[in-house]
Amino acid sequence: MKKLLLTGFEPFLDFPINPTEKIVHALDGKAVGDYEIMGHLLPVDFNLAPKEIAEEVMAKKPDAVISLGLAAGRTAITPERIAINCQDGEPDNSGVAPEDKLIEENGPDGYFSTLPIRRMVNRLKEAGYPSAMSNSAGTYLCNNVMYSVLHLLKSANIEVPAGFVHIPASHELAAASKKGMASWSDSDLLEAITLIIKELD
Amino acid sequence: MKKLLLTGFEPFLDFPINPTEKIVHALDGKAVGDYEIMGHLLPVDFNLAPKEIAEEVMAKKPDAVISLGLAAGRTAITPERIAINCQDGEPDNSGVAPEDKLIEENGPDGYFSTLPIRRMVNRLKEAGYPSAMSNSAGTYLCNNVMYSVLHLLKSANIEVPAGFVHIPASHELAAASKKGMASWSDSDLLEAITLIIKELD
Amino acid sequence: MKKLLLTGFEPFLDFPINPTEKIVHALDGKAVGDYEIMGHLLPVDFNLAPKEIAEEVMAKKPDAVISLGLAAGRTAITPERIAINCQDGEPDNSGVAPEDKLIEENGPDGYFSTLPIRRMVNRLKEAGYPSAMSNSAGTYLCNNVMYSVLHLLKSANIEVPAGFVHIPASHELAAASKKGMASWSDSDLLEAITLIIKELD
Amino acid sequence: MKKLLLTGFEPFLDFPINPTEKIVHALDGKAVGDYEIMGHLLPVDFNLAPKEIAEEVMAKKPDAVISLGLAAGRTAITPERIAINCQDGEPDNSGVAPEDKLIEENGPDGYFSTLPIRRMVNRLKEAGYPSAMSNSAGTYLCNNVMYSVLHLLKSANIEVPAGFVHIPASHELAAASKKGMASWSDSDLLEAITLIIKELD
Repeated sequence: MKKLLLTGFEPFLDFPINPTEKIVHALDGKAVGDYEIMGHLLPVDFNLAPKEIAEEVMAKKPDAVISLGLAAGRTAITPERIAINCQDGEPDNSGVAPEDKLIEENGPDGYFSTLPIRRMVNRLKEAGYPSAMSNSAGTYLCNNVMYSVLHLLKSANIEVPAGFVHIPASHELAAASKKGMASWSDSDLLEAITLIIKELD
Repeated sequence: MKKLLLTGFEPFLDFPINPTEKIVHALDGKAVGDYEIMGHLLPVDFNLAPKEIAEEVMAKKPDAVISLGLAAGRTAITPERIAINCQDGEPDNSGVAPEDKLIEENGPDGYFSTLPIRRMVNRLKEAGYPSAMSNSAGTYLCNNVMYSVLHLLKSANIEVPAGFVHIPASHELAAASKKGMASWSDSDLLEAITLIIKELD
Repeated sequence: MKKLLLTGFEPFLDFPINPTEKIVHALDGKAVGDYEIMGHLLPVDFNLAPKEIAEEVMAKKPDAVISLGLAAGRTAITPERIAINCQDGEPDNSGVAPEDKLIEENGPDGYFSTLPIRRMVNRLKEAGYPSAMSNSAGTYLCNNVMYSVLHLLKSANIEVPAGFVHIPASHELAAASKKGMASWSDSDLLEAITLIIKELD
Repeated sequence: MKKLLLTGFEPFLDFPINPTEKIVHALDGKAVGDYEIMGHLLPVDFNLAPKEIAEEVMAKKPDAVISLGLAAGRTAITPERIAINCQDGEPDNSGVAPEDKLIEENGPDGYFSTLPIRRMVNRLKEAGYPSAMSNSAGTYLCNNVMYSVLHLLKSANIEVPAGFVHIPASHELAAASKKGMASWSDSDLLEAITLIIKELD
């Protein structure tokens, strides 16, 4: 059976809950389609997160990598098209707040996702779940993890599909928040991610 | 057993689906809390909708009236605080597009909902569903139906709780739409409305 | 010459600047159309603001009352259609945060604006400024001031047009804010309000 | 005196007006800072626009290239950080609607802007204009033109700064639109772009 490294993030910024955490816990060790899921939770930390996921990739030699992140405010499941060589944004959970910094001094400006993202979007819509391609993973941890994994795989000449998928807030998170934001139930989020995984070759 | 008149609307404007329709069909004839549900679907028509719901109220003598409407773009279940004496907006399904028209020539400017709306909001949040009070039901059919029912009950001296609750789009509707909008699964929408009904005395 | 009482608000919540303040200062003592402007700045305080504006109305006997408020996030000049008998929301500048409270124990649920709001909207659009009717002034200070003035005038049988107009953020305010919001230059805001005043009979 | 190629676009999609057109006309032939402006209007056409701007660059040998585009809905002047090797989106003005197509078969996935974009953002904010970096120019004509110019300059080894700046709608455009959108006056847009040009070395 093939192996999928599926990562999520711990809570960050003002968000007390990170719904990617529940998804990763729910699927860890399970089989979905042709893949056995190896779940891993990443810290929201510009220094640690890229190192941790690189160690996971090198140690577990997965046949595919899907990283999940919360995009509070988005209304749909949005596979990311590209990661860019840039760190910028609010302080991470260790208080680091880079501005316009390169992730890799000599890396290319961007890396396209190598996941079958168009197929993933189409499959979700067919199943009645809102989904759309996203053209920006931002410049925070989500983009960093996506860029770092794609750079590592390219540099090490490892040909496995990898990329990032942003998800909406969960109802639980939105109900606990003072400002309104689009949200899905945890079970909808879980089912949508399961459908996405099944689109891997 | 008490009787609840629960109304929804047919599809309107650009929306091929109206999720209130499914909720009304699913609950029609069922018992929820102390209430037996009498479901009724209204046309999106400034002339017909107020008449139809008035006839339902007079014929069935419900102990409570909850009208449901779609508020595409809203992220939460939003009980309306007030209906206002105004018809204005896009053409209805018969092509009627009033501007700044009174609903009732001699009616008051506004009527507060007589549903336990704060309790409804609190109950939903407690159950993990995003919910908030809304201060405007607009000036389209939703507001018109809410105003007309409250005016009828007041004029006829009938003391039963009545009001309007707006719901987000369903996933199905959002997935079929070209523009993104917040959405919930039909089952979440149904469960949330069931919880709301249980807050009726 | 007729007299217009034009009110604005001091800064509130997270907003370091209130663009209504500049407008009121700029127009105070000036003549616009048939009106001499009497400007007055109100405190963001549920107890004080309604009293202060009532005193102004009774002392100065204006021929029209226009109150201005900031609606951060709105994209257009929005005359309000209705004020509702409700105080609810975030703490005011004195820390008072009412929930679902009536403004006037025996007041009606709502009062329509008595300003020529449709004409104001049309005039602004004709002049190339985005403008739209708003159906909710919220339940915070803006709504409270609008309700209190309309209730006072009605109770005292004083027939002068009165109402509320919400304006977008200024560029200055938006540039100083961490979150993006629509904004206009102070000079556009001032010109738009001047055009609105000229629509008074 | 140095030469700046400043491009805008003709109207497209539902938008009857493109405010970049006015800016380009207003500045064409003028001197701003150390630069003489050579204005050029581009067609909203996936085949023609990249060719036209390439011809302009090769014929006029500008010392800098700034392309402007309308981002209806954005609230601030947003210099773009990156262009990506992708054509995707609504039909252009010739009815061409590519999906997930590469712009350059063998081009890199992305190109960072070579304009001093952080300085431009800071200068605008200092002057009281909302401004922010954008991490996505989309996948429509704006991104295509930015990518094509950066690819041309890189391929031809021409070291001149080049990039793209998205601007909000103008009041005129927003006032003519049925849906609300943030907008600025034409004179604010013009002044902001003038300030941006002055940040070129």
